[in-house]
Amino acid sequence: MSEPLSIALDAMGGDNAPEIVLKGANIARRRFPGVRFIIYGDEAQIAPLLERMTKLREIATVHHTDEAVTNETKPSVALRRGRNSSMQLAINAVRAGEARGVVSAGNTGALMAMAKVALKTLPGIDRPAIAAVFPTLRGECVMLDLGANVECDADNLFQFGVMGGIFARTVLGLLKPSVGLLNVGSEEMKGNDAVRLAATYLRDSGMPVQYHGFVEGDDIAKGTVDVIVTDGFTGNVALKTIEGTIRLYTDFLRKAFKSSLASRLSFLLARRSLNKLRARVDPRRYNGAMFLGLNGIVVKSHGGTDAFGFANAIGVAVDMSANGFNDQIIKELAVHGPTDASTARAAAS
Amino acid sequence: MSEPLSIALDAMGGDNAPEIVLKGANIARRRFPGVRFIIYGDEAQIAPLLERMTKLREIATVHHTDEAVTNETKPSVALRRGRNSSMQLAINAVRAGEARGVVSAGNTGALMAMAKVALKTLPGIDRPAIAAVFPTLRGECVMLDLGANVECDADNLFQFGVMGGIFARTVLGLLKPSVGLLNVGSEEMKGNDAVRLAATYLRDSGMPVQYHGFVEGDDIAKGTVDVIVTDGFTGNVALKTIEGTIRLYTDFLRKAFKSSLASRLSFLLARRSLNKLRARVDPRRYNGAMFLGLNGIVVKSHGGTDAFGFANAIGVAVDMSANGFNDQIIKELAVHGPTDASTARAAAS
Repeated sequence: MSEPLSIALDAMGGDNAPEIVLKGANIARRRFPGVRFIIYGDEAQIAPLLERMTKLREIATVHHTDEAVTNETKPSVALRRGRNSSMQLAINAVRAGEARGVVSAGNTGALMAMAKVALKTLPGIDRPAIAAVFPTLRGECVMLDLGANVECDADNLFQFGVMGGIFARTVLGLLKPSVGLLNVGSEEMKGNDAVRLAATYLRDSGMPVQYHGFVEGDDIAKGTVDVIVTDGFTGNVALKTIEGTIRLYTDFLRKAFKSSLASRLSFLLARRSLNKLRARVDPRRYNGAMFLGLNGIVVKSHGGTDAFGFANAIGVAVDMSANGFNDQIIKELAVHGPTDASTARAAAS
Repeated sequence: MSEPLSIALDAMGGDNAPEIVLKGANIARRRFPGVRFIIYGDEAQIAPLLERMTKLREIATVHHTDEAVTNETKPSVALRRGRNSSMQLAINAVRAGEARGVVSAGNTGALMAMAKVALKTLPGIDRPAIAAVFPTLRGECVMLDLGANVECDADNLFQFGVMGGIFARTVLGLLKPSVGLLNVGSEEMKGNDAVRLAATYLRDSGMPVQYHGFVEGDDIAKGTVDVIVTDGFTGNVALKTIEGTIRLYTDFLRKAFKSSLASRLSFLLARRSLNKLRARVDPRRYNGAMFLGLNGIVVKSHGGTDAFGFANAIGVAVDMSANGFNDQIIKELAVHGPTDASTARAAAS
């Protein structure tokens, strides 16, 4: 595309909005020349911050609104009463074609509800899913759904597999990514009906993904596959279990280094290496959960992130937009999807 | 009980059986004076090993059998054809009242299937659950089910909560343990029907547990509650996700210490502290998954563990037996369980 790529930003979402949003955009600006920003939020708070970011100001448009969705707002309430919120207006910019993607660090449930209603799902996709990238022993993998759909049937899981595969190809740059279904064992008879049926769909789909089979919880960190597909309940628990375990280990490590004079000294020696380690497990590095399957790119930043993390979330939206992630889903599902999936379904029933 | 406490051992289960089983028993012998062992397995392999463990030999009886359940055997096949296996015979010793508990490092599915058929569930318990103890920021917590039941209804989850609470009191020594239901959010409307209904049962049960509410994946490591209740699908994924994440972090840490001369040097200085850290996240320390809800104590050791880990699994069986874990379940469900749970059920419907 020759037209400049615009990203809409909900300036009022997250614990330290609008400051981290603007600072994040200012970092992203340097990383992605040519990208423009459309910023929604309280101008009285935004203007003084932008004052000091002259280069960002040149490539940003600010649209004022008094209203913002709080973290406590229920999604249904946000939908009804949040029409003029910075979150809704930023999503609307994507619907209107003014922006290719939207990034918000606000209320996840509200963002998903508003995005679903405003943008609708892509043809061939019944429900959007939340996806994120995780570090592994072999590199990184993408996992979905992380919480959009508490209950999923085999069709949903199949579609998540297709979307995850296209994400791995277009954004992570893998040629033929492998896809695994998260289960309680790798044998074919394991699990519930939904995963067993989804396995037959993925195996026989004819899509350009390599269906690996069932994987287990430890395969996420092992990097056994490039794409891990699961329902939103299990995926959300797995995501938060990873976060909690990393925090626990980091706490134990910190205490180990404080436990003796020798270890305190060694901490000083090892500081640079340990900082590298910290960077590898830094949640900010993997900040940015993608809402896949909607007519528009939607990225949710962690609410507690800093400017560096928010810039990474913007980076995800830019990557997905620039690499034509959604166009690829439409194209491939039109060629392979409905037909082949129905065939697989018929064959499996 | 004044009679000696006997534990039956499946000597042929696990990657390095029977060696680690006997060495493990030899370690456990020193920790738990007065405990006796009934050992089932291939005498030709067991006898030469016992030869060198004179003190273990004095408190152990060996029953020879040629047969053993392999890790590849399907549970249904093990049930039909494994009647003379070391695993089945060890379980039978519990059924016959000769042993109070059984420990095996063999095939988990086969052990559960055989134990269910031979021992049956306790009165008031519909299905047994697999539980384990996890390290947390605040101490430790017990989580169940870790994979025995792929699908669970509210009654199952309620019973898991009751058993987990009794485990925390009788084995971990907590006065009034808190119980949380694993979910995708802490708000009341979150999750699927089963967890929402189980929440009402646990809140209104009148059992001596403190129902905390819903917890999320990161609450496992945080130690937000003493008992975490979940279905076997989610619990198994969470368990293995924790294992995988710890392995990933340990690998990153190892590489960080090898990345420069200074950090190699610092590793030498910090070695003692890091060994302490390793001990804290050592899976062997938390080895021993408990099968709760059966007429007899059944503990599954990790198949790849060493003698130290196997001794810990024996320790779990001894603790549960000595503290009357099962008697307490029978007693409390007779007093509170059926009546109060039915009342809660009626009130909730």
